[in-house]
Amino acid sequence: MTLCISLSARPSNNGTRFHNHLYEALGLNWIYKAFAPTDLAQAIAGVRGLGIRGCAISMPYKEDVIALVDRMDPSATAIDSVNTIVNDEGVLTAHNTDYTAIAQLIARNELDPAASVLLRGSGGMAKATAAAFRDAGFGEVTIVARNETNGRGLAASYGFDWRADVADATADILVNVTPIGMTGGPDEHAPAFSDTAVSTASVVFDVVALPAETPLIRAGRAAGATVITGAEVATLQALEQFVLYTGIRPTAAQVQAAEEFMRAGTP
Amino acid sequence: MTLCISLSARPSNNGTRFHNHLYEALGLNWIYKAFAPTDLAQAIAGVRGLGIRGCAISMPYKEDVIALVDRMDPSATAIDSVNTIVNDEGVLTAHNTDYTAIAQLIARNELDPAASVLLRGSGGMAKATAAAFRDAGFGEVTIVARNETNGRGLAASYGFDWRADVADATADILVNVTPIGMTGGPDEHAPAFSDTAVSTASVVFDVVALPAETPLIRAGRAAGATVITGAEVATLQALEQFVLYTGIRPTAAQVQAAEEFMRAGTP
Repeated sequence: MTLCISLSARPSNNGTRFHNHLYEALGLNWIYKAFAPTDLAQAIAGVRGLGIRGCAISMPYKEDVIALVDRMDPSATAIDSVNTIVNDEGVLTAHNTDYTAIAQLIARNELDPAASVLLRGSGGMAKATAAAFRDAGFGEVTIVARNETNGRGLAASYGFDWRADVADATADILVNVTPIGMTGGPDEHAPAFSDTAVSTASVVFDVVALPAETPLIRAGRAAGATVITGAEVATLQALEQFVLYTGIRPTAAQVQAAEEFMRAGTP
Repeated sequence: MTLCISLSARPSNNGTRFHNHLYEALGLNWIYKAFAPTDLAQAIAGVRGLGIRGCAISMPYKEDVIALVDRMDPSATAIDSVNTIVNDEGVLTAHNTDYTAIAQLIARNELDPAASVLLRGSGGMAKATAAAFRDAGFGEVTIVARNETNGRGLAASYGFDWRADVADATADILVNVTPIGMTGGPDEHAPAFSDTAVSTASVVFDVVALPAETPLIRAGRAAGATVITGAEVATLQALEQFVLYTGIRPTAAQVQAAEEFMRAGTP
C-alpha cells in the first residue's frame, strides 16, 4: 500500500476526500492522510524514511520546506513556494500545483496576453497568480493591495504596477485573490471590484474557492463575461497533485465525482 | 484520525489486520499501516514529526532503534530489544510486548518457579523468553542451542545452564523458541523435544506461532500436559501494543474476533 499525506497547521478534509475517492475509483491500493506536523524537518525526514510517495504542503510551511527538498520544479521556483512534494525513491522534488492550475486555466480560457489585468491581493496565492500571468506573457497588470509594502513588492517582482484600492479602476481581466466574497468572511457579500469594472470586463476570475459562486462570479456571469472560479483552481491543483503522485490522469467524469465528494465533506 | 504503524524489513499483514479490526470494532478513528523503512533514523524522526501514536518494531530494527528513543520501559530493558514504541506528545518510550506476553502467560498458567525448564533456541525471542522465566523466579533453566557462542552467551546472561542438543534431556517445562515445527520450514514435521521429554513434562510451551498446533503442541496435548501456544504469544503481544497505544482494553470476544481476522489474512 502506498501512502500520500498532507502537512498543514490546520488540516482540512479536502485533499483526503479528493485523493482517497480517486484511489478507490481507480482501484489503487493507496491511502491519503492529513497531518498537522509537530516539527516540519522531522516530518519531511519521515516522508523519506517511510517512503511516503507524495506530500501536500499547506500553510505555514510552503516556504520553509524549500530548504528540506532535493529539487525544485519550475512551478515552485516561479514563486519560491511549494505546495506539493513528490518522493522518487528518496529524492524529493518540490512543485507548486496552484501555479500550474492557474497557468492551465489562463491557457484553457485563451486569455489574451495583450489584455489589461487588475489583480487584487498580495498573499501567497496572489503571487502564484501574478507569476502565472507574467509567464503567460501578460505585461499590463496592476496589483491592487491595501498593504503598500506587500503590494509594491509583489508588483516589482513581476514588473507590474501597483495601486492601493480598486476605486473606479477597470480592465479587460479582473482577478480577485483576496478573501473578499469568501463564505463566512467579513466581506462575504462584498464585491471585489466595482459594478462598472465588472460590466466592462471580458473576463472575471475569482480565486476564492468557497463558495463556487462568489458575488464577483455571479456578477461577472450576469454581465456576460467569461468566468473562472476558485473551485476550478482548487480541483485542478488537486488533480495535478494526483497525476504527479500516481502517474495516472483520471477521466473528466472521475475528476468530477471526486470533486463532488470533496465538496460534500465541506461544512 | 490517529495513525499507528509498523517498521519491518519484510512487513506482514498481521498487525495491520489485528489493529485495524479492533479500531473498527471499537469505533476508533484510527488507522494502522505497515512500512518497510528506507532509513530507520528518518522513519523514527517521522514518528515524532508526524505525531504517529504508536510504532511496532520488527526485524532487523529491534536493537538499533534503542539509540533513537527517549525512554526504555523495563520490558525493553530486560532484553535490550524493542518491539513497540509509544509516542506521548513527542516523547518516545520503547517497550517489548513479546517479553510482556510471555511473562503474562507464565503467570496466567501458574508455572511453578521451582520447576526445571528446557528452553530450546538462542535468538531474540529466546532471549525474551529466558528473561521472562528468570524474572518470574525460575532458576533451574537449561538453554539448548546448537550454536555454542549464542547458547552459552544467552545462558550466562541469565545465570542459566547451556547444552548443545536436547538428546535425552527431560524437564518439567519444555519451551521451544526455534523455527522447528514452523509451517513451511525445513523442520516442519520434526519434534523439538524427544518423545520421552514430552511424555514426562507437565508443561509444553511452543513459541512458534504458525501453525497454532505445531507437532510439539499436538504431542504435549496428547500426553496431557498443559500447553501454551505461540499463537497465544502473538495475540497477547499485539493486544498489549493495542492497549499501550489506545489506553483501551478490548473484551475477550473483541480480541478473539480480531485474532481470527488476523489469521484469515495469513497465506
